[in-house]
Amino acid sequence: MKHPLLLITLGDIAGIGPEIVAKAWPKLFAFARPVVVGDADAVRAAARLVHATFKVQPVADLAEATPDEDTVPVLAATDRDLSEVVPGAVSAASGGAAYDFLVAAIDLTLAGKAAGIVTCPLHKEGLHAAGVPYPGHTEILAARTRAPAHAMLLYDAELPLAVAHVTLHMPMKTAMAQVTTTAVLEKIRLLNDILPRLTGCPARIGVAALNPHGSDGGLFGDEEEAVIAPAVAAANAEHIFASGPYPADAIFLPHIRTQFDGIVAMYHDQGHIAMKLLGGRRAVNVTAGLPIVRTSVAHGTAYDIAGQGFADESSLISAVTAAAKLAAGR
Amino acid sequence: MKHPLLLITLGDIAGIGPEIVAKAWPKLFAFARPVVVGDADAVRAAARLVHATFKVQPVADLAEATPDEDTVPVLAATDRDLSEVVPGAVSAASGGAAYDFLVAAIDLTLAGKAAGIVTCPLHKEGLHAAGVPYPGHTEILAARTRAPAHAMLLYDAELPLAVAHVTLHMPMKTAMAQVTTTAVLEKIRLLNDILPRLTGCPARIGVAALNPHGSDGGLFGDEEEAVIAPAVAAANAEHIFASGPYPADAIFLPHIRTQFDGIVAMYHDQGHIAMKLLGGRRAVNVTAGLPIVRTSVAHGTAYDIAGQGFADESSLISAVTAAAKLAAGR
Repeated sequence: MKHPLLLITLGDIAGIGPEIVAKAWPKLFAFARPVVVGDADAVRAAARLVHATFKVQPVADLAEATPDEDTVPVLAATDRDLSEVVPGAVSAASGGAAYDFLVAAIDLTLAGKAAGIVTCPLHKEGLHAAGVPYPGHTEILAARTRAPAHAMLLYDAELPLAVAHVTLHMPMKTAMAQVTTTAVLEKIRLLNDILPRLTGCPARIGVAALNPHGSDGGLFGDEEEAVIAPAVAAANAEHIFASGPYPADAIFLPHIRTQFDGIVAMYHDQGHIAMKLLGGRRAVNVTAGLPIVRTSVAHGTAYDIAGQGFADESSLISAVTAAAKLAAGR
Repeated sequence: MKHPLLLITLGDIAGIGPEIVAKAWPKLFAFARPVVVGDADAVRAAARLVHATFKVQPVADLAEATPDEDTVPVLAATDRDLSEVVPGAVSAASGGAAYDFLVAAIDLTLAGKAAGIVTCPLHKEGLHAAGVPYPGHTEILAARTRAPAHAMLLYDAELPLAVAHVTLHMPMKTAMAQVTTTAVLEKIRLLNDILPRLTGCPARIGVAALNPHGSDGGLFGDEEEAVIAPAVAAANAEHIFASGPYPADAIFLPHIRTQFDGIVAMYHDQGHIAMKLLGGRRAVNVTAGLPIVRTSVAHGTAYDIAGQGFADESSLISAVTAAAKLAAGR
């Protein structure tokens, strides 16, 4: 079977995107045919930085790309002048270009010319400086692919475990009010749809509680009984294997988490504290619910170390591997 | 130096308290002179269950106790009839007796006859059935010792790290409103007072954020800037080494947590998810802010396995070790 063609967007080129692509490049061919969507000069500069020996192949059309371990095809995807971009500094040019790269990759993938997208990090302030009205990749993807419901998963292929979050980047006070039966059920369904493509097996889903001790039978809150349990019951009625809620300080312990392929967390830190302690830098982001495959590194632009060549490429390799699995499983 | 005399309360004898005492007994003498406060028959039954060879020594006064590896002094501390208590079943008798054991231990320790208390778990419903108007050990201790401020710490001597929680057993919605500058500062002070007695060194305290990404500069909430940072500044003004807030999904990672001996968590699961993943069954509870030393196993009565003899005694051993250190450090 031919490996799937995956588009790797460079993200904000003032961040570590170009250098992790350059470092990871020869290791990406085990599962994928990668093509970079971005800027050829940025890839050339990154190659010099990390002493990579590959050749950059600028292409105007995906059909021209001939990726191999010694050849990095780069599809030019922005008209912006990037000559003044400096590693580690916010700019409208690199922020706007990151948006252009993503839009080009989305449109090519929606058109069936690529099997999926792997994104390097962009910088929120760069997007903002360029006047792009979105806070990040996921929101742009959801809008441009017109996805009715989506979820950002943290996925660790070695555990293996995927965590979907009912609420994410919002104040905790707001998050507490947004944990609804509808929202929990939506995340269970999204996990149930995507997990078999990652694991090859029917999904087994655990759902975390919101309150300490899972409210201890209603002593500390009622969301477990009033909100979460009904979502689990509704999922079961749809023949989804889901169970819970489990106390959040228990569900990630080995004797419980190994019963599941996916866990629904109620808020950002509930899932992230556990997955970062369990997996370190191994975890990747997977966007569930889109009509296209999309994964991402689980770290940011790392402006503090950008342009120095010692950024860790392992999350990018994991993200490409996960995207290739998802593309094969469609 | 003579080892400190520590009182071990049996807790609810329908739980695993008696059997973990029987299993741990010979291992408790490295740091402490332990005396059991409870019921001699319950200890005898536990000894038979785990095939322990020690002799039970019923005592009416602490002065009579001669603890050694082969002798378990048990101070009778309840008038209740415990003959009908069955392992794993809630009862007013065993619930009320657990309260009696604790009260006796508190009064002896306040009177200076013992150096501290280590508690085995009690059962909330048992307490309730006996008409005791407290939800657990810590509340009884705080009331009877008239402690103006106290905190339950999760302490792992192997990391080593202690976590104090600003809010604990309450609904998350309530907890969000109880994260105040005063409350955060109080927990920083309590950690600063107790940590040197556990570690022998001045305290270094890290403070967790409340919101995801520590609010990302105010994008997702304002508690970091409005509530938590002022508490850290106030602590610094008192010459306490404290820093933060740090995002909760970062502060427990090795490169940050190793800078600290203690971490202030904003809510129950923030600290418990991390400490349970990091330490498993090693962690113990330490009550800070009391006029007396008190530690506890970090698990419950485990009614599901009580009376079978295979409960794990390691948390009790750690709790006795921590209490002995605290007693020596007073």
